[in-house]
Amino acid sequence: MIRAAVVGATGYAGAELVRILAGHPEAVITALTSRQYADVAFDSIYPAMAGIITQKCETFDADSVCRRADVVFTALPHKLPMEIIPEIIEKGCRVVDLSADFRFRDPALYAAAYQSHESKQLLAESVYGLCEIFADDIAGARLVGNPGCYPTSVLLPLVPLVEAGLIDSGTIIADSKSGVSGAGRNPSVTSLYSEVSQSFKAYKVASHRHEPEMEEKLTLAGQKPVNITFVPHLVPMIRGMETTIYASLASGINEPDIRQCLEQYYQDRRFVRITKQGRPPDTRDVRGTNYCDIGFVVDDQNRRLILMSAIDNLVKGAAGQAVQNMNLMWGLSETTGLTAAPYPV
Amino acid sequence: MIRAAVVGATGYAGAELVRILAGHPEAVITALTSRQYADVAFDSIYPAMAGIITQKCETFDADSVCRRADVVFTALPHKLPMEIIPEIIEKGCRVVDLSADFRFRDPALYAAAYQSHESKQLLAESVYGLCEIFADDIAGARLVGNPGCYPTSVLLPLVPLVEAGLIDSGTIIADSKSGVSGAGRNPSVTSLYSEVSQSFKAYKVASHRHEPEMEEKLTLAGQKPVNITFVPHLVPMIRGMETTIYASLASGINEPDIRQCLEQYYQDRRFVRITKQGRPPDTRDVRGTNYCDIGFVVDDQNRRLILMSAIDNLVKGAAGQAVQNMNLMWGLSETTGLTAAPYPV
Amino acid sequence: MIRAAVVGATGYAGAELVRILAGHPEAVITALTSRQYADVAFDSIYPAMAGIITQKCETFDADSVCRRADVVFTALPHKLPMEIIPEIIEKGCRVVDLSADFRFRDPALYAAAYQSHESKQLLAESVYGLCEIFADDIAGARLVGNPGCYPTSVLLPLVPLVEAGLIDSGTIIADSKSGVSGAGRNPSVTSLYSEVSQSFKAYKVASHRHEPEMEEKLTLAGQKPVNITFVPHLVPMIRGMETTIYASLASGINEPDIRQCLEQYYQDRRFVRITKQGRPPDTRDVRGTNYCDIGFVVDDQNRRLILMSAIDNLVKGAAGQAVQNMNLMWGLSETTGLTAAPYPV
Amino acid sequence: MIRAAVVGATGYAGAELVRILAGHPEAVITALTSRQYADVAFDSIYPAMAGIITQKCETFDADSVCRRADVVFTALPHKLPMEIIPEIIEKGCRVVDLSADFRFRDPALYAAAYQSHESKQLLAESVYGLCEIFADDIAGARLVGNPGCYPTSVLLPLVPLVEAGLIDSGTIIADSKSGVSGAGRNPSVTSLYSEVSQSFKAYKVASHRHEPEMEEKLTLAGQKPVNITFVPHLVPMIRGMETTIYASLASGINEPDIRQCLEQYYQDRRFVRITKQGRPPDTRDVRGTNYCDIGFVVDDQNRRLILMSAIDNLVKGAAGQAVQNMNLMWGLSETTGLTAAPYPV
Repeated sequence: MIRAAVVGATGYAGAELVRILAGHPEAVITALTSRQYADVAFDSIYPAMAGIITQKCETFDADSVCRRADVVFTALPHKLPMEIIPEIIEKGCRVVDLSADFRFRDPALYAAAYQSHESKQLLAESVYGLCEIFADDIAGARLVGNPGCYPTSVLLPLVPLVEAGLIDSGTIIADSKSGVSGAGRNPSVTSLYSEVSQSFKAYKVASHRHEPEMEEKLTLAGQKPVNITFVPHLVPMIRGMETTIYASLASGINEPDIRQCLEQYYQDRRFVRITKQGRPPDTRDVRGTNYCDIGFVVDDQNRRLILMSAIDNLVKGAAGQAVQNMNLMWGLSETTGLTAAPYPV
Repeated sequence: MIRAAVVGATGYAGAELVRILAGHPEAVITALTSRQYADVAFDSIYPAMAGIITQKCETFDADSVCRRADVVFTALPHKLPMEIIPEIIEKGCRVVDLSADFRFRDPALYAAAYQSHESKQLLAESVYGLCEIFADDIAGARLVGNPGCYPTSVLLPLVPLVEAGLIDSGTIIADSKSGVSGAGRNPSVTSLYSEVSQSFKAYKVASHRHEPEMEEKLTLAGQKPVNITFVPHLVPMIRGMETTIYASLASGINEPDIRQCLEQYYQDRRFVRITKQGRPPDTRDVRGTNYCDIGFVVDDQNRRLILMSAIDNLVKGAAGQAVQNMNLMWGLSETTGLTAAPYPV
Repeated sequence: MIRAAVVGATGYAGAELVRILAGHPEAVITALTSRQYADVAFDSIYPAMAGIITQKCETFDADSVCRRADVVFTALPHKLPMEIIPEIIEKGCRVVDLSADFRFRDPALYAAAYQSHESKQLLAESVYGLCEIFADDIAGARLVGNPGCYPTSVLLPLVPLVEAGLIDSGTIIADSKSGVSGAGRNPSVTSLYSEVSQSFKAYKVASHRHEPEMEEKLTLAGQKPVNITFVPHLVPMIRGMETTIYASLASGINEPDIRQCLEQYYQDRRFVRITKQGRPPDTRDVRGTNYCDIGFVVDDQNRRLILMSAIDNLVKGAAGQAVQNMNLMWGLSETTGLTAAPYPV
Repeated sequence: MIRAAVVGATGYAGAELVRILAGHPEAVITALTSRQYADVAFDSIYPAMAGIITQKCETFDADSVCRRADVVFTALPHKLPMEIIPEIIEKGCRVVDLSADFRFRDPALYAAAYQSHESKQLLAESVYGLCEIFADDIAGARLVGNPGCYPTSVLLPLVPLVEAGLIDSGTIIADSKSGVSGAGRNPSVTSLYSEVSQSFKAYKVASHRHEPEMEEKLTLAGQKPVNITFVPHLVPMIRGMETTIYASLASGINEPDIRQCLEQYYQDRRFVRITKQGRPPDTRDVRGTNYCDIGFVVDDQNRRLILMSAIDNLVKGAAGQAVQNMNLMWGLSETTGLTAAPYPV
C-alpha cells in the first residue's frame, strides 16, 4: 500500500483527495494536515465522512508527515508549496503539488504571473502532470506539478491538434466556464449562494493566471510561440468546467482529420472520451469523475474549428488527476481508484 | 457473480441501480429493459456512462430476461410490477420491486391508496425491504417490496422509539422535504427547471400515498393503530430528502433515553449514523450514498421530541436500498458495493 | 415627498429597501449609510443599480442624516439600533427599525434572547410593526419594530385563529424553511454556494431567537401563555420562506370555520392572500413582493390543522413590510410603492 | 390608454408580457388568449398573479380580439403568427410579433432557417424591432418583428462597431450562454430540473436559427456580407443571457476608440449601460429589467476585442423589448412601464 499524506486537507481540493484516496485500493491515508483545523477530526469538518474518515487533522510537520508517507499531496495556496516541498523531497517522499508552484518550465513566466520562484532547482526537475500527455515523464518523477483546472480543460483538446499542425495556432480563443467550487472554501462575498445563484458573468478577462500556463505548454506542443485569448466565466453550479475553443483550421484540414487525430491520440487513454457525432460534452456527464469529454464541430463557412471539453474541476482538474499522477508514479494502472461511475443525475 | 437485470432501467431509480451495480464487486448487469428506449444503447440515454455501460436496452421479455438473471430489479410505475412479477418468480428469479406493489401487508390498504391488488398470494409472501428493520426476513425472501423514499426517511428514526414506547404514537407529525428527482424523469411542467428553481412549497398535504405505508409499519412496531400527519414538500435540489418529525415524549422519557435507544438499535448497522450532539443531518452529507443520518433535539419546555433524518432519495430511498436488499438476500455483507465515499461538495 | 434615510444600506435588507424606495411614488431617498462602504457609490456595490441609484454611501452621522430625513430605516445588526435610535427620535425623525431591538414588549424576553436592553423607555413606546395586525397602533408611532421574517410567516396565519380560539394553542408546531439571503451578506463558509446548493437541513432547532418573539405575540393574541415548537431549515434558494404549522383543532371546529376566520380577518388586507381550495402556497408566487400567501388543510383523521404560509423573507419579511409601515405611519395606502407584479418565473 | 391583447399569454414570454403590461401606466390588458388554457383564469395558471390578473384566457378569435385591442402582441411559436397576423393588421390593430416570422428582410433567409414564408408582403413592410438601432422605423410601423434573445445580446454590442468599421467583421465569434426559461414552458426531458441543474453544455453548435438573423443585420450594418460563428450554451439559471464576443480590432483601433464609439452610440439610450473600466456585465444585474449591460476588454497581445453583454432573455430578449416597441410605436418615452429597479439578489 502506498502511504499518502494530504497537506491542506480541508479545502475543496484537499477534501476531494481524501474522498478519492479513501476508496483507492492501493493507497492508505496516513496523515491529514490543516492549519485552520489542527486537532479537529476530519469528519467534524466534513460530516459526510462520519464513520469513513475519522482521523484528526494535524499541523504540518515535515518530519512527522514524511516518516509516515510515501507520497505527499500538497493542496495549498501557491507560494506555500515551494517553501515546504524541498524538505519533503529531501526526506525521501515523492510529491504531487496541486498549486501553480511547479507547473512552469520557465521561472520567468512563473514570476510574471505569481512571484519570484524560490526553488528553481526543483522546478527544473519537476514534471508537468498532465497525465495523458506526459505519462512517460511522470512515471519517473519525484515531484509533479499538477495542472490547473482551466489548463487541463484547454490543453487536452488542443495539444494533439497543435502538435499535428491541424489548426492555426495564432487564432486560438478559449471561452471557459467554471463551477463555483473553483473559488475554494474561503468565505468571500463573491462566492455566497445569494450572489452566485441565478448569475452568470465573465471574470479576469484575458488576465487569468492560468493563461501563461496554457501558453507555455501550447508553445511546447507547437514548437513555436503560441498566444491565446482566454476568458473564464462563473457558472451557478458546484462542480464542473466547460471550455469552448475556437481556432481556424489549417489549410486543407477538415472534420475527419480532426476526428482521426483526436481519436488516435487518445485511443488508449480511458479518461479522455471523444463524443459521438459532435455531441457537445456536458459537465453533468463527468461530475465526480476523472473523465475529460471532448466534442467538436467544424464551422465550414468560416473554416473554423469549435472544440468543446468538459471536466469536473475538482477531479480531473485537481484531485483526480493528482491521484492519476500517483498511479503513474507508482506504476499502477492510471485508472486505479478512479473508476466509480458518475451519477445519472 | 450475481446476474442482475434491471427492468425499467432508464428512469432515475433504474439508472441509479445501473450506476450502483456497475461498481458492485459481486454482481454483473445482464439485462437492461426499457419500453421507451428499446434497442438504444444505455450510454446514448445517459452519456455519463459512455465507455462504462454500453449495452443496449431491450423490450422486457420474461423468458429472455429470466434466463440471464438471478435477481430482477423492477423499477416501474406501480401496477406494472404486479402484472409481470408472478411470471418472473415462477421462472426462478428473485425480485426486488421498487414500486409500491409489494410493500403492504394488508391488500385493503394497498387498494385504498392505489388500486385493487391483482397478486395477493405473492403479496402475502413478499417481505418489506427496510433493511435495518427486517434483515432476517429479507435474507430468505424471493420477493422484496423495496420501501418508498418517504417511508424510509420516516421509519428509520421512528420505529425503534415506537417499538420501545418512548414517544406518544398518537402525536406523530412528519414534515418531509424532497429533491426534485423524486418526481422522476417524465417531462411535466411542474418539474421544469424554471418552475422548481427558487421555489419551495408543500404538495399532497396529508394525502400522499406513502402515508398509509408508514402507518402500517408503525402500527406493526407499536402494536396498536398509529395514525400520523404527513406533509411532503419540494426542495430545489436534485437529490436528497430531509424529514423533521415531531412527537410528544412518553412520560418520564428524556434526551438520554432517546439517544440510548437509537444508538443501541443501530449499533451494528453501518448505514444508519446518529449525529453527534443533536447536529441536524444535512442531505448533502448523504448525497450519492446509502446512509441515513439521524439527529434529534428534545424541546423540554413542550416535552416534545424533534427527530430529523436525511437520506438520498435515489439511493437509500430507492436503488441503494434495493442493492442492500440483494446483498442480504444473497448473504453478502449488506454494504457490498455501497461504500463509495460521498462528495465533500 | 417623504424624505427617507437608510442606515445600513448595503446589507441585503438595506439594499432591498433601496430598491423599493427607488420606485416609491411618495418617498425619496436622501441618505444611504454604510460603515463598510463609506464614500463608495451605491451602484458600485450593487451594479444592478447603475444609472438608478448613483449616490454615495456615507458614514452614519445623526445630525447630518436627521436633517435630511423624515423617516429613518435602520437595517443594522441588533444592539446597534438601540444605541443610535434614541438620538434619531430626539431629532424629530420617525424610525422603522428592522432589527430585533424594538420588537418585544417585555425587556426581559429581549434580554434572555439577545442582551440587556439599553433603551427601555423607547421600547415601551415602540409599536410592533406587523402591519395587518397592528395597523392602528402603527399609524401614530414614532418608532416601529419591524417584525422578524420567521415571526411574520408564523404570526400572520396563526394570530386570527389563536385570537378566535379555533385551535389548541398548546399544540402549535412551526416548521419553517428559509432561503439563504436570510443569512445576510457577511461572508461565511456556511453561506457559500458550494456548501448550500444541493443541501437541505434544519438549524438552531428549537433554539432560534425568533421563537420568543413569536411566543410573546401569540400569548397576547390568545390572552394566555403560548409556547410553540419552532424549527427553521435552510433551503437552496435566494429568497423565500415557507412555514408549515401544525395545531390541534379546538373541539367542534372544522375546515369551514378556519376558512371563514381567515378570510374575514384579512378581507380588506391586500397583502394577505388566502389560497383557493387548500392549494399550498409557493414561495415563487410571492418572490419580490409584499404578499403573504396562506393555505391550509384539515387532517380530519387526526383533528389537526395544517397551515402553510409563503413570504419573501426580504420583502414582507423585512424591507417591504418596513415600507408598508412607513405608508401606515404617513397615512398613505399601505400598498403604495409595493404593487409591482411578481415574475412569472 | 392603449388597449393591449396578448396572444399566447401563458408561455413564459407571454406571461412576462402580462407582468409588464400589468404595471404599465399607459396600457391596459383587454384580452389574453391561450389554446391550452381557454376559459381558465390567468391566475390559476400563474398563482403569483392572484388578485392582480384574474381575467380568463380565451381562444384566439381575430374579430373578438381586434375589437378590443389597439395593439396585439403575438407570443406564439413561429409559423402561427404569419397565419393570423395579416387578418389582425387588416382589422386595424398594430402588432408586435415575438416570433421569428417577421424578423427577416430576406424571405429566402427565413425560408432556409424556418420554412417558406406565407406572408411576404407583410414581411416587406415589417420593421425589425431592435429598439436602440431602429427606433425611427419602429415609430411608424404597423408590424414589428421583435428580435430574438440571442440576436439582441449579440447585435447591441456589435452593430455600432461594425457600422464604424472598428473591428474586422470577418473574425466575429459569439459565445452565448442562456438561462433555461429560453426553452419555454413546454415540458421536455432536457428542461427538467434534475437534468439541467448542476449542468453546463453547448447546444446547436454553429447551427442555431438565430444565427442568420444576426448575420442579416450585421451585413446591413457593415454594408458587406458578414458571417459569424455562433455557439449557444445552457446555464443552470432561470433567466439571463450573457454573450462574450471575440473579434480582431481594425488596424490602428484601440481601447479608447471602442469606448468612445459605444458610449456615443448609446448616450441617449437608457436601456444600454456601458460598464465602467471593463467590468464584465453580470446577468444578475439585469434580471427582471430591460437593460442590456455591455462591457469590453482589449486583448492587446492578440489585437482582439472581447465584448460582453448581459440581458434578461425574457425582458430585453422578449417581452420587455416588445413593450419598448409599443412605447415607440405610440410615441411614448421608450422607458414607460419598464423602470422597475432590479432585485439586489
